[in-house]
Amino acid sequence: MNQQPSPLFEKHQPLLLKAIEALHARTYFAAFPEQPAPAVYGETADADGQARFKNRLGKKFEELKQPQALHWGGQEESPYTQEPLGIAYPLFSVDSLVENAGQAFHSWRKISVPERAALLMESLDRVKERFFEIAYATMHTTGQGFMMAFQASGPHAADRALEAIAAGYEELNRFPADALWDKPMGKYNLHMHKTWQAVPKGISVVVGCSTFPTWNSVTGIYGSLITGNPTIVKPHPGAILPIAIIVAEIQQVLAAHQLDPLVCQLAVDTYDQMITKELVMHPDVKLIDFTGNSAFGSYLESIPGKSVFTEKTGVNSVILDSVDDVDKVTANLAFSVSLYSGQMCTAPQNFYIPEGGIDAPGGKISFDDFAQKLVAQISGLADNPKAGPYVLGAIQNKKTSARVMEAEKLPGKVLLRSRHLENPQFKNARTATPIVLEVDASHKEVFSQELFGPIALLVKTKSTDESIALAQKMAREYGAISCGAYTTQSSVREKIADAMGLAATPVSFNLTGGIYMNQNAAFSDFHVTGGNPSGNASFTNGEYINRRFTWVGHREPAPAG
Amino acid sequence: MNQQPSPLFEKHQPLLLKAIEALHARTYFAAFPEQPAPAVYGETADADGQARFKNRLGKKFEELKQPQALHWGGQEESPYTQEPLGIAYPLFSVDSLVENAGQAFHSWRKISVPERAALLMESLDRVKERFFEIAYATMHTTGQGFMMAFQASGPHAADRALEAIAAGYEELNRFPADALWDKPMGKYNLHMHKTWQAVPKGISVVVGCSTFPTWNSVTGIYGSLITGNPTIVKPHPGAILPIAIIVAEIQQVLAAHQLDPLVCQLAVDTYDQMITKELVMHPDVKLIDFTGNSAFGSYLESIPGKSVFTEKTGVNSVILDSVDDVDKVTANLAFSVSLYSGQMCTAPQNFYIPEGGIDAPGGKISFDDFAQKLVAQISGLADNPKAGPYVLGAIQNKKTSARVMEAEKLPGKVLLRSRHLENPQFKNARTATPIVLEVDASHKEVFSQELFGPIALLVKTKSTDESIALAQKMAREYGAISCGAYTTQSSVREKIADAMGLAATPVSFNLTGGIYMNQNAAFSDFHVTGGNPSGNASFTNGEYINRRFTWVGHREPAPAG
Repeated sequence: MNQQPSPLFEKHQPLLLKAIEALHARTYFAAFPEQPAPAVYGETADADGQARFKNRLGKKFEELKQPQALHWGGQEESPYTQEPLGIAYPLFSVDSLVENAGQAFHSWRKISVPERAALLMESLDRVKERFFEIAYATMHTTGQGFMMAFQASGPHAADRALEAIAAGYEELNRFPADALWDKPMGKYNLHMHKTWQAVPKGISVVVGCSTFPTWNSVTGIYGSLITGNPTIVKPHPGAILPIAIIVAEIQQVLAAHQLDPLVCQLAVDTYDQMITKELVMHPDVKLIDFTGNSAFGSYLESIPGKSVFTEKTGVNSVILDSVDDVDKVTANLAFSVSLYSGQMCTAPQNFYIPEGGIDAPGGKISFDDFAQKLVAQISGLADNPKAGPYVLGAIQNKKTSARVMEAEKLPGKVLLRSRHLENPQFKNARTATPIVLEVDASHKEVFSQELFGPIALLVKTKSTDESIALAQKMAREYGAISCGAYTTQSSVREKIADAMGLAATPVSFNLTGGIYMNQNAAFSDFHVTGGNPSGNASFTNGEYINRRFTWVGHREPAPAG
Repeated sequence: MNQQPSPLFEKHQPLLLKAIEALHARTYFAAFPEQPAPAVYGETADADGQARFKNRLGKKFEELKQPQALHWGGQEESPYTQEPLGIAYPLFSVDSLVENAGQAFHSWRKISVPERAALLMESLDRVKERFFEIAYATMHTTGQGFMMAFQASGPHAADRALEAIAAGYEELNRFPADALWDKPMGKYNLHMHKTWQAVPKGISVVVGCSTFPTWNSVTGIYGSLITGNPTIVKPHPGAILPIAIIVAEIQQVLAAHQLDPLVCQLAVDTYDQMITKELVMHPDVKLIDFTGNSAFGSYLESIPGKSVFTEKTGVNSVILDSVDDVDKVTANLAFSVSLYSGQMCTAPQNFYIPEGGIDAPGGKISFDDFAQKLVAQISGLADNPKAGPYVLGAIQNKKTSARVMEAEKLPGKVLLRSRHLENPQFKNARTATPIVLEVDASHKEVFSQELFGPIALLVKTKSTDESIALAQKMAREYGAISCGAYTTQSSVREKIADAMGLAATPVSFNLTGGIYMNQNAAFSDFHVTGGNPSGNASFTNGEYINRRFTWVGHREPAPAG
């Protein structure tokens, strides 16, 4: 094996080392600028990206290096136009996908770790050139507003991918490739030459979701690839294009370096013929990454002999105890509820407010006053023509729209009705402003479930202690990915930190201004902890990487020294 | 929290740092001397230990700091005397064990990581003073010979425990306790103060086995304790005393430092009322370590919501291709087969020998010649009065004796019959010398299972390629913990290394002289890889530790800088 670093590795090594450092420092680090500024990405990048996206509509997606398609198909639909995108992707049988991956495995696992890292980083550089195209693809599959679509599917996803590469590189270099074991035996020494290899587990399948088609998938894809596993990417049938572009770029880099592009394959399916279950159940598939509903995610976790990484659903809470400035607090929470119409896995749902009100510098703010202020902020944001339509975006799935309508019938008091919000750019956009309901703490059946979409429940509790206990209970029993808390009391803060820590839920305390509990930064915030029912994996802790391979050590006597 | 290192931590820090270094260097390292030499352990240590052991027989084991026993009981029996030890241990209900652990959790998880490490290392220092007593306890529960009983249950187990402490200490310090996240936003910077805690998963249950009651349990016990989890130790009802002494010493250290001794509890059961299933199924139990049969181990792995670490059964192979010195090779293998009468999880079972024979400097050695030499070496070792009885030890379980007798009826040719071996010290010892059978490669049903005990199958294959394919298939489908291989050809060596690597099985190549494929060294050899059906865990890789806790990060705006 050639141990000289390749020019490709030398090109990427400085950033790789910075990324590894950032992984440990957990301070701010971003390799891909999040602002879609012409100064950064080029004057024509936005227009070019939009044109490339529009030019795809109604055509075959022919960028993949996956020959011999069985059929072509695709059923994506824009939540903004409610019309089909008409893009057709190559479709393959599960057996041929797995067979291809099995063949590609034997070349990919023999590529050195530095070279794998360099190839994967090279693909991210290429993806960067297509952030705008990916952004429009994301808008018109997920319903995200442009800014979120750009950031989440572009730079933030690329940062998360780089994080996985960095974590993988570190983990794969954790133990030496070989060592001399030199044991004193009294009159002589026993010498053994030992070697260790990080053996990849095998074929990896990454199952995507409809709302964050790149951000939630790239960590699994790059995490599996850096550790030597061939990877089959199974996007949600409703959100294919964004990740298809990334897979195509990975294949381009592989082919450009005379490697088998089928190391990373796209496995598209359609609503009428879903292949996920057949694919993940294939005996040769050893790794499964899944983002989606809890029932299927939990089923996957129970399959014997497979390493499974899930992000499922959860019930995110906000605990309101005491505030410095109630207007800033409600403004911040209104934005969190409205952002992408509550379709983020980190969006808050249950707001626990004591019946006696919330402490504030000017005296108690009653439950009703707080509710009224929050409702006013939510309405104000939606009604602001410069912000509302862009912050809320569109509703990805018709079922979510229906759920929002149904929510009016929940046993509680409707404080704010959901309504359609006109989008100035897309008159057919499927939209829904947040519904806000007041629910009594005794109605646990109402708030003990994820109500995905723009649905906020204000739960009246006896006290902050009850609020904390409920937030902890929900997280432990039903999962939670985020938690917000507002308190000016350090003892209450400690109590919340401890209770939610035990429920493996990160807490954002006292957020106001331009930062929100929904947000999650690569290299700093672990996404999902893996310690409650919302998922068994975390971007990117050691476990996220080291469950993708096994250390195998061979040994042989060495000449006595 | 007091951030000053305690005197106890200062005492143990130098060894802890050395152990962490050793974990990465993977060269020879041992903190506890393996020779039971008077110069190391004291002139009277052996006699004192033996006396302490004998003095326990027929009495209550009253060292545990676990009050309010429901009953007292114990059914251990010496494989050397085939008589009950008569030691009674306190018995508790599952509910009270779990409740105690739940209470102890809240103090233990708040102890700082350095302090936890120091307390646990202190317990190992105390255990060291009792290595001889533990050795006799191990002999008379497992049937191991004295030397193995001393080494495996004493210094080697303590080294493995130290390895788990070191790995835990490192993993828990992998990310900072806090950081300032300082994001440039153009005209200003966003500042967030972030904190991270490694939150223990909860109550841990470590289920022991009858053959290695301390070695196979201490990694789970110390691995769970260092990561902040209260631990319930459930020994095999046939091998309690060795681990009871260790639990007692952990409790002594905890009590001496004004900590709740119930952080680590012993949960004894009896054959007529086994509590393992009820214990591990308790909803508050979050971590399970298990050594034992595959059926129950696989069942445990499938329980949702629990982190499970298993060592199950496997089919270990030896691939014979070519040798330099056939006498040295057969002598080495004969020892491996005989050591503790094949009752090690790393003992070889299937020997793949090409029908055309084995290459050697003097020409081919035929299958029959090789078989005859191996049989002669096995008989010679058993018949050597200075070695045989001590190397073979006794048979722990009557079922193993029966299995060895039954093996004569397997479809194959018996090359060497098993027989009783007189033990000069214990005339009632339950013993059995190895049985050797010749089996054709077509009779897969015979060798596709673990035949636990002194049973060696010589499988006649078409070629070394078939031998490799069979060894790989067995490991992949039925699991394997070790593999031996003999070849003088580098291309064959590479083929074996690659094939068995893919089956996640470590290979010992060309062992002769005083080192055996059964042996496994702390800080250097990973025990079980976790990558095949023989188990899902590995002593001590990162995963062995980081699946015992979750990283939880809280955050709060910091004043702008």
